[in-house]
Amino acid sequence: MKRRDFFKSATVLTAGSAVAALAAPAIAQSNVTWRMVTTWPKNFPGLGVGAQKLADRITKASGGRLTVQVFAAGEMVPPLGALDAVIDGSAEMSHGTPYYWQNKSQGLSFFTGVPFGMTSRELTAWVRYLGGQEIWDEIYDQFGVQGFMSGDTGTQAGGWFRNELTGVADIQGLRFRTPGLGGQVWGKLGASVTNMAAGEIFAALQSGTLDAAEFVGPYNDLALGFYQIAKNYYFPSFVEPGLATEVVVSKAKFQALPEDLQEIVRVCAQASYDDVAADMYANDPRALNALVSEHGVQVRRFPEEILEAGAKASMELIAEIREGGDPLTKKVAESFVAGFNLLRQRTEGTDMPYLAAREKYIKY
Amino acid sequence: MKRRDFFKSATVLTAGSAVAALAAPAIAQSNVTWRMVTTWPKNFPGLGVGAQKLADRITKASGGRLTVQVFAAGEMVPPLGALDAVIDGSAEMSHGTPYYWQNKSQGLSFFTGVPFGMTSRELTAWVRYLGGQEIWDEIYDQFGVQGFMSGDTGTQAGGWFRNELTGVADIQGLRFRTPGLGGQVWGKLGASVTNMAAGEIFAALQSGTLDAAEFVGPYNDLALGFYQIAKNYYFPSFVEPGLATEVVVSKAKFQALPEDLQEIVRVCAQASYDDVAADMYANDPRALNALVSEHGVQVRRFPEEILEAGAKASMELIAEIREGGDPLTKKVAESFVAGFNLLRQRTEGTDMPYLAAREKYIKY
Repeated sequence: MKRRDFFKSATVLTAGSAVAALAAPAIAQSNVTWRMVTTWPKNFPGLGVGAQKLADRITKASGGRLTVQVFAAGEMVPPLGALDAVIDGSAEMSHGTPYYWQNKSQGLSFFTGVPFGMTSRELTAWVRYLGGQEIWDEIYDQFGVQGFMSGDTGTQAGGWFRNELTGVADIQGLRFRTPGLGGQVWGKLGASVTNMAAGEIFAALQSGTLDAAEFVGPYNDLALGFYQIAKNYYFPSFVEPGLATEVVVSKAKFQALPEDLQEIVRVCAQASYDDVAADMYANDPRALNALVSEHGVQVRRFPEEILEAGAKASMELIAEIREGGDPLTKKVAESFVAGFNLLRQRTEGTDMPYLAAREKYIKY
Repeated sequence: MKRRDFFKSATVLTAGSAVAALAAPAIAQSNVTWRMVTTWPKNFPGLGVGAQKLADRITKASGGRLTVQVFAAGEMVPPLGALDAVIDGSAEMSHGTPYYWQNKSQGLSFFTGVPFGMTSRELTAWVRYLGGQEIWDEIYDQFGVQGFMSGDTGTQAGGWFRNELTGVADIQGLRFRTPGLGGQVWGKLGASVTNMAAGEIFAALQSGTLDAAEFVGPYNDLALGFYQIAKNYYFPSFVEPGLATEVVVSKAKFQALPEDLQEIVRVCAQASYDDVAADMYANDPRALNALVSEHGVQVRRFPEEILEAGAKASMELIAEIREGGDPLTKKVAESFVAGFNLLRQRTEGTDMPYLAAREKYIKY
């Protein structure tokens, strides 16, 4: 055993006696390896890369005392089996996004972001400072897990459409790949909504099974090649205005960690939130420029009629959840709406007038 | 014991001998305490609280191996002596904002944020993913220090004005407290600009030495009581659209830390960036509501003429820096403008149309 490792281990054993700290077996046990199962394909830009970076930072910041091993979607469990793997103990951590687990609690959707809801910065303000995390904890407590925000895509792209959209009439019956609450909103607008995994979308567009597909934004979408089939790339995604990812840990195993390692996990997750958001923010416009200049993509904005109808459908959906949800889902929806009404005052009163003036007058 | 590990440990034990490192008491000695001198008053909302929280998280995540002790402005050195204290070795860390050190290099202003420049999210994208950090490192290398982003106020308030503003004519000769590059922009608009410390502003407004003052935003300004004198609170600050703070470390002492502690400092600083931004974002609108409902403050937007003239003056200022700065300042200005031109595509093409639609159609 290396002496330096011994010293490092020794500082951790806060509860252990000095004598225990000197015994070899106790030290060996204090180095643990955790398996992080993710919902992302290997090297998936922004989100999958962010999961790997988060794991590496925990490993590095803990000096290897907590080593995190990452498994891409399907390597250990199917992508949508990630949370269950943590619940049943076959993994210690999962990396995904809360709305994947809507079937466990509809309230989880709010921590991913909701149609015509909070932006990325609003979402962190709500979760960290306006009571969001506490309700999230209540929901996950039922499953013996704990979630931390771990990244955000920012406002996404609205999707790839084979044909140009002139209004709501063009959406009727449109076979559109778009998941989650956003899919429900598009359903209310008349689209025939389906969900399918990332790897299946291209073939479905090519064969004509799909008329349109929405995935993330330019940085992710470029790699999947949708531009080869559908040239109209619509902005913005009013149903995913700030999609947050999570890292989930087994609560019992987390609480069994010494306090410094618990703090390392918390801090690394929060740093990762900033890191992924910055990565997406820097690389989306680069990818979009490549899509336009190298692949002939047409960048378009949704017609006002669609935005207006989308907003109406989104408010309807939230109203349905507030009325019909289980008690915890109602609680999260109320907290979300209260936070939203507060935070939008800053966004609309300070950020937006600034950006409008900058757009109008600044040219370099 | 491996030689490499020995060297790593030895570098930490600045006072201890190699022999001491092998003895049991060395465990106690490998715990180091770093002094963080800050530019903020004690318990200063958002920023000063953020510095304390950052220090506490480093201490906790390191299990006390790196304990950070915080000194508010003036407790150990005057607020604007914080960076020099790190350079001369009387402190190991400082917490402030890069533009306080413009006299060392004008290029540092860009890492705080510039008039009509980047928002908080754009700033992290530039610093972390578009080359900003590397140039920042080049500048600070000259002084033997290393900087990390540690927080952000978001877009600030424009300031407290005794009288309503109808256009640029009302600014002529106006005695206005506003520091940094923003002050230079207001100077170009005709204001008589002065700087003074937070604690002096109220008295200067009261005595009539000042006609107007700009500080941070509602969360910070509420505590300072400006509303008692000047009732017109203007938004947004077009000169501070996203003010970032920094934590600076002595480079030699940082590099002498073992790798896990270095990573803990890096990760905690990045988590702090997200944390402070979320804190300000959540608490600014709460404070603004109190200012309006309890203190009769009038919330106003700058007249279009002032925004337009402010934008022109800001572009002039950046042009002067690009032409007249020292080589490193020119380098940072070029990188900033290139980053800005890329990032604004996302802000203006995705974020803004989303927010505009949301503002127009969403009501809860």
